[in-house]
Amino acid sequence: MIGVAVIGCGRIGRVHARNVAQHPRARLIAVYDVAHAVAEKTAGELSVKAAASLEDVLADRNVDAVLVASSTATHIPLIRAAVRAGKAVFCEKPIDLDLEPALACWREIAPHHPVVMLGFNRRFDASFLALHERLHAGEIGRLELAVITSRDPAPPAAEYLKGSGGLFRDMSIHDFDMARWLAGDIVEVHAFGANLVDPLFAQFRDIDTSAVSLRAASGALIQINNSRRCAYGYDQRIEAFGSKGMLQAGNQRATSVELWNAQQTAAKDLVVDFFIQRYRQAYQTEIDCFIAALENGGSVSPGFADGIAAQRIAVAAEESLQTGRAVRLSS
Amino acid sequence: MIGVAVIGCGRIGRVHARNVAQHPRARLIAVYDVAHAVAEKTAGELSVKAAASLEDVLADRNVDAVLVASSTATHIPLIRAAVRAGKAVFCEKPIDLDLEPALACWREIAPHHPVVMLGFNRRFDASFLALHERLHAGEIGRLELAVITSRDPAPPAAEYLKGSGGLFRDMSIHDFDMARWLAGDIVEVHAFGANLVDPLFAQFRDIDTSAVSLRAASGALIQINNSRRCAYGYDQRIEAFGSKGMLQAGNQRATSVELWNAQQTAAKDLVVDFFIQRYRQAYQTEIDCFIAALENGGSVSPGFADGIAAQRIAVAAEESLQTGRAVRLSS
Amino acid sequence: MIGVAVIGCGRIGRVHARNVAQHPRARLIAVYDVAHAVAEKTAGELSVKAAASLEDVLADRNVDAVLVASSTATHIPLIRAAVRAGKAVFCEKPIDLDLEPALACWREIAPHHPVVMLGFNRRFDASFLALHERLHAGEIGRLELAVITSRDPAPPAAEYLKGSGGLFRDMSIHDFDMARWLAGDIVEVHAFGANLVDPLFAQFRDIDTSAVSLRAASGALIQINNSRRCAYGYDQRIEAFGSKGMLQAGNQRATSVELWNAQQTAAKDLVVDFFIQRYRQAYQTEIDCFIAALENGGSVSPGFADGIAAQRIAVAAEESLQTGRAVRLSS
Amino acid sequence: MIGVAVIGCGRIGRVHARNVAQHPRARLIAVYDVAHAVAEKTAGELSVKAAASLEDVLADRNVDAVLVASSTATHIPLIRAAVRAGKAVFCEKPIDLDLEPALACWREIAPHHPVVMLGFNRRFDASFLALHERLHAGEIGRLELAVITSRDPAPPAAEYLKGSGGLFRDMSIHDFDMARWLAGDIVEVHAFGANLVDPLFAQFRDIDTSAVSLRAASGALIQINNSRRCAYGYDQRIEAFGSKGMLQAGNQRATSVELWNAQQTAAKDLVVDFFIQRYRQAYQTEIDCFIAALENGGSVSPGFADGIAAQRIAVAAEESLQTGRAVRLSS
Repeated sequence: MIGVAVIGCGRIGRVHARNVAQHPRARLIAVYDVAHAVAEKTAGELSVKAAASLEDVLADRNVDAVLVASSTATHIPLIRAAVRAGKAVFCEKPIDLDLEPALACWREIAPHHPVVMLGFNRRFDASFLALHERLHAGEIGRLELAVITSRDPAPPAAEYLKGSGGLFRDMSIHDFDMARWLAGDIVEVHAFGANLVDPLFAQFRDIDTSAVSLRAASGALIQINNSRRCAYGYDQRIEAFGSKGMLQAGNQRATSVELWNAQQTAAKDLVVDFFIQRYRQAYQTEIDCFIAALENGGSVSPGFADGIAAQRIAVAAEESLQTGRAVRLSS
Repeated sequence: MIGVAVIGCGRIGRVHARNVAQHPRARLIAVYDVAHAVAEKTAGELSVKAAASLEDVLADRNVDAVLVASSTATHIPLIRAAVRAGKAVFCEKPIDLDLEPALACWREIAPHHPVVMLGFNRRFDASFLALHERLHAGEIGRLELAVITSRDPAPPAAEYLKGSGGLFRDMSIHDFDMARWLAGDIVEVHAFGANLVDPLFAQFRDIDTSAVSLRAASGALIQINNSRRCAYGYDQRIEAFGSKGMLQAGNQRATSVELWNAQQTAAKDLVVDFFIQRYRQAYQTEIDCFIAALENGGSVSPGFADGIAAQRIAVAAEESLQTGRAVRLSS
Repeated sequence: MIGVAVIGCGRIGRVHARNVAQHPRARLIAVYDVAHAVAEKTAGELSVKAAASLEDVLADRNVDAVLVASSTATHIPLIRAAVRAGKAVFCEKPIDLDLEPALACWREIAPHHPVVMLGFNRRFDASFLALHERLHAGEIGRLELAVITSRDPAPPAAEYLKGSGGLFRDMSIHDFDMARWLAGDIVEVHAFGANLVDPLFAQFRDIDTSAVSLRAASGALIQINNSRRCAYGYDQRIEAFGSKGMLQAGNQRATSVELWNAQQTAAKDLVVDFFIQRYRQAYQTEIDCFIAALENGGSVSPGFADGIAAQRIAVAAEESLQTGRAVRLSS
Repeated sequence: MIGVAVIGCGRIGRVHARNVAQHPRARLIAVYDVAHAVAEKTAGELSVKAAASLEDVLADRNVDAVLVASSTATHIPLIRAAVRAGKAVFCEKPIDLDLEPALACWREIAPHHPVVMLGFNRRFDASFLALHERLHAGEIGRLELAVITSRDPAPPAAEYLKGSGGLFRDMSIHDFDMARWLAGDIVEVHAFGANLVDPLFAQFRDIDTSAVSLRAASGALIQINNSRRCAYGYDQRIEAFGSKGMLQAGNQRATSVELWNAQQTAAKDLVVDFFIQRYRQAYQTEIDCFIAALENGGSVSPGFADGIAAQRIAVAAEESLQTGRAVRLSS
């Protein structure tokens, strides 16, 4: 049994804590939150203890791994402390809003050969995973073009937005990781952005709509489109086109029911629109992969380097937005 | 060039006349209608002559084939006369509302080895044709179950209904032919009928909704469902299920557009709801097959015997409706 | 918390036991199986006790409800004993292979106003449930025709088949319940059966393929088609057609991936083909509804009478198969 | 009746000639081709005369309109001559491979208020047309993002490629027109190109795969992806995303048949892969719109200015490809 402590009992922290608690080969040792009452609530629901301090968590010999789901600014200090304490780490994306601190963190911890897995949950979605496997098994030959569609159902709260790091670092980062996962290293980035959804975004010097083009080292071209609002739900699709054909992976709906009437035919349900519901299976699978990697002493994936690489693309996309130039990434 | 005369310039007669006129290897020699003004109108549109009488049509040496699209009661006399005059015949279904006159007609004309093709247009629909070919090519192994769905967009006019012969002879007859075409000889028939659409049907001792089960000599079972009203268009589908899989052939829509919004997703157009539009390509193809058969001296299909066979099933379905028993057909 | 004991630790018993154990407002008190070792294994997995005897289970004051998932022949004795012991009962279908014992059981227990829920799991499938709700909310007007497709991925083992009671009592019974659930009381039944899948069925005087027509008291007609083998998975579909349109509920697939290549386009995954996986959510939901009904003192649904009613249709279908007549059910 | 002469009897010229000939309110007066034998063949098929010279065509008083379907280099001289002769013109795209000659042509002919319609056939495809109308009717609110997919089934012949003007001028030009048609004026263009399909393209300093981003004056962002090879047919799709939802328009298939078997389910036909077949209806409709505009004295659309505008985008895309910068278009 792998002992896990969860740091941060917000929405996503609770999802992870529950998945750890229900995992047959993991044991949830403790949960922690700077707001102790919040930690106690989660602890009560899952019948575990609410740790009194981070020190307690890291000093606990039963804790093999620390799952970091606290606010972004705490990620690096927590990774450092956990690695120093000899713990494996699962950390929610992003490592940090800025690239430099993440790189510095890596320089510091790398000599310890740390086990750090990044929470790019979409890699574990059954449909995206199947597309990835079938692509790499050669079903459509060499990848030439990919279209990644990612549209949030509605803008986040102003409070969240303020500290989000902007569309590319907060939202597109998942798509940048998908692009790397499908096509390999990215060498060039171009981005168009727009303010079409809500004046709030402009207020925070952020954008709410974007069209990004990536060029992979392999030659493949990837188009990503993002919006902060989508009337029909949380639109999450991948289209991979290759020399021998195309693979598409699409949305989820609550039911398979279709309505045919005098206005339209074969009308389906809305797309599942809450990310925690949409990626419920993916969150379970990523924890399962983390636990399995720890058991087998194998390497975790996606790892720290994947977090850095996606971040580099986000930074390049921002630069492209400012300069109007495609930005080359040194490989 | 095959010379063709069209008898009957109603809705379906005009479709056939136009298809003959546009056929590269056929020549529309004349059109005829008991209402001469009606014939003249069609003749004018297609730049051919409106024959003054049936005798003129049958005496015309340029006429190789007669296409019978006049009212049902005239079919048998016209087939007889045309065969006697040495013409090939294409006749709209049904041969007659009753089985006996059709059988008598056949006994009379059979010694002449007549060429008589029946207008079961659905056999020529590109999708049904492809399903048929792929089924018989063995793609799904042996046929075991079929579901045939056939729902008219709206009830016919009372006037039409009166002389229609009832649901099974007028509408289901097409589905009975489809069943034979897919599964071969039918040996047993059961029918449930209901009055759910319009009181008009009950008034004419007719039904407007039915569920028919057929057993084929091959062992395959076929379910047919019919309705005289369908909110979303002219619903025409076939599902063929066999030992190795299933083939489905579906409806037609005007466009491929799908709407996703806050109410539903992937909502498609209504189904094409006018039979002449739905089967436009099928009507062209059946004329093309008729012309090609005449050119090659090959046999026409579906022929007179197919018309009789479908009619037998209709009669058996009516008997089943009355008696509550499944009715066996002598093969 | 509702205390539940599970009787029978076979495949389906274990599914129920796990769902009870994971239910937030239920407590799995004990499991029991005539093969004690089997019970102990399940008990160990779920950290509950394996009861030593049925008497112990029924004498346990913590047991509010007994979940009967043992072999069919034991259902009636267990229902009787549990009701006598004042327990609520959840019983897997069917109550019994024969109608008379079930009716006798009811006459005996009815005076006790027992709480007995029948395990017609499909009523709790999210898609079928949504179709049912939308139908009854009037989205397609009055129900006129329904097509229920139910095809097993592969024939059961010979051993199972032997005691199964035949296609209609074992397999179609679910579809008969679906028909009643959608259309209300059934008043007339016709059945065609065939042996097309495996000679084994004929050996047991059973059929492997069927086409059944039902007439509801409402006037609606229902067509059910069943096969004991389906190349592409466990085919479970409902089509409900009414005066204002149609609702369809379809199959489940592991992923949303579609392949487009030089052979075909938009090719999807096979249909989920293991019933426990296909109805995983339905099994959870039915237990949840059972628990909720016990908490609220509300009535359970589907109940004993629904089990009887579906059984009556199965018996009528068999009679129709023998006699070739549609069989009327006294209401 | 509008009298039309067709110049150029290649593949597309013959399509247009046939559509004119079959149009109920147009008359095909003559066809012309520099290769007289070619013209005679087409003339024979359509029972019209093969003009001996261009002069004869332009001098013919019965000719109201000239349809230019000859090689690209002849377009401008023919437009000039036809306008000078007082004829209306329908010209295949592009006006010219270069922008300057097209602008010069316009400066010369503009004072004559010429009627010049450009052959952007996709605007007349029933599905794209419906999407366009529904978008402009406000069904999905304001357009924010569009994804245009356009993939040819196979690379053109080397001979054709040589003089094609390159991917953007030859192929993407249609997509640029679609983008303008949907989103209005384009103000910024970025292009990535790649050589992934065939070494032939690199040999001609051309690309075979591209990912283009456009920004419209309205703020909307458009992504276009192109490939010169597509295993499953001629992939032609539009996705328009707006504040209230999404409209998608898709591909065409020969039949509606779907195959379900032990390998996959719901597998559809290949996509129609010959452009003349794919856009058969669109070619008819564009001629019909041209004829109707001439009859009504209304303006034609798309016109010369639309040809220029699409060309400007193509030129900008090429510049972006060279410089790595997004290119602004002066409006």
